[in-house]
Amino acid sequence: MKHVVTIRRKALAASEEHARTLRSRFADARALVLNLISSPGSGKTTLLERTVDRLADRCRLAVIEGDVATERDADRIRALGVPAHQVLTGGACHLDARQIETALETADLLPADILFIENVGNLICPTTYDLGEDFKVALLSVTEGDDKPFKYPAIFSRAEVTVITKSDLLPHVPFDMAAVTEHVASLNPGGTLLVLSSTTGDGMDAWCNLLLGRLADKRRS
Amino acid sequence: MKHVVTIRRKALAASEEHARTLRSRFADARALVLNLISSPGSGKTTLLERTVDRLADRCRLAVIEGDVATERDADRIRALGVPAHQVLTGGACHLDARQIETALETADLLPADILFIENVGNLICPTTYDLGEDFKVALLSVTEGDDKPFKYPAIFSRAEVTVITKSDLLPHVPFDMAAVTEHVASLNPGGTLLVLSSTTGDGMDAWCNLLLGRLADKRRS
Repeated sequence: MKHVVTIRRKALAASEEHARTLRSRFADARALVLNLISSPGSGKTTLLERTVDRLADRCRLAVIEGDVATERDADRIRALGVPAHQVLTGGACHLDARQIETALETADLLPADILFIENVGNLICPTTYDLGEDFKVALLSVTEGDDKPFKYPAIFSRAEVTVITKSDLLPHVPFDMAAVTEHVASLNPGGTLLVLSSTTGDGMDAWCNLLLGRLADKRRS
Repeated sequence: MKHVVTIRRKALAASEEHARTLRSRFADARALVLNLISSPGSGKTTLLERTVDRLADRCRLAVIEGDVATERDADRIRALGVPAHQVLTGGACHLDARQIETALETADLLPADILFIENVGNLICPTTYDLGEDFKVALLSVTEGDDKPFKYPAIFSRAEVTVITKSDLLPHVPFDMAAVTEHVASLNPGGTLLVLSSTTGDGMDAWCNLLLGRLADKRRS
């Protein structure tokens, strides 16, 4: 097991070094960078589509999509006229910093005001990987159930912003919003929780204002 | 990298050995064993609860629950009077055969007619781990979207049975059932696809009949 531990430590150190390089590069580019993490089907790509609809004429957006297979998500973003690059992990369950470096070398994504990194659909593995982002966003759709912050505490404690998605389906599913709000706040006292529906547009203003506010903060700093 | 490859091969060989031991043990116990795999919140535990409601007076059921954190799922099953053991992975994204062996040593689960192993909520990592089961069941809720078999092909090609859950929500979400049916069939030509709602009970008869049929087949073999 000693070999395994040593190799893992080396891999982790290398990954941290790549993340530092990315963070410095993003700072130079003055880009706000978000790392979006959720289960498969929580609505990450749809949220990005509706965000593009609202913000593309106000700032330069770019997207890196992570998936095990298919270019579908990048195609959906490119169809809206926003540069997007698909990283195919070929089975791996998360994105790592080296893949983001390669994406930046391969595709014309920077300069951008906001770069969204949509991680592989997985509520566990992407949590511990630093991609040089300004902050992580955890998405949870109301259809997944209100027990998920209890069962997957790591991501909800590390994500500065939690977005509860598909709020339009609340009348049709059991979901105790008060319990989720309270538990996410206890896991992450300084975090922000938003509730929205990409379908109806409810809550989208607050989400877009958060993005623009964080971008302005970054530009001032 | 040579060390990493060697260590991975050794780990895989050890894991396969544990799976063989489990398979032999399950055969001796004449238990039908299912490995349930899906995204978080696809309805694995709820399906098991409703399955217990329908089958507990006809056969002996037992459940192993895998989660990163909390005893919630095992508590839900135990509340129905069925033996259940919770494996807490402490961050790991899947169950492995060694954990199942330990669960069998720790809890009185066998003899049972049907043992359900509910894997950690994750559509990627559990796919390649053999737990000695008779077959894998992939669950996909209609709220996750009809693109998931394309984006996560490995599990849908390996699971003998695919269960489309939460069919009661079909009127409220975009989900092309014909496309999903066709794609799952192309990934897994010999597989079975069921559509059901644990909430309304639609499709539950077919699911329970499949379980009883497979149990009878196993007993005859």
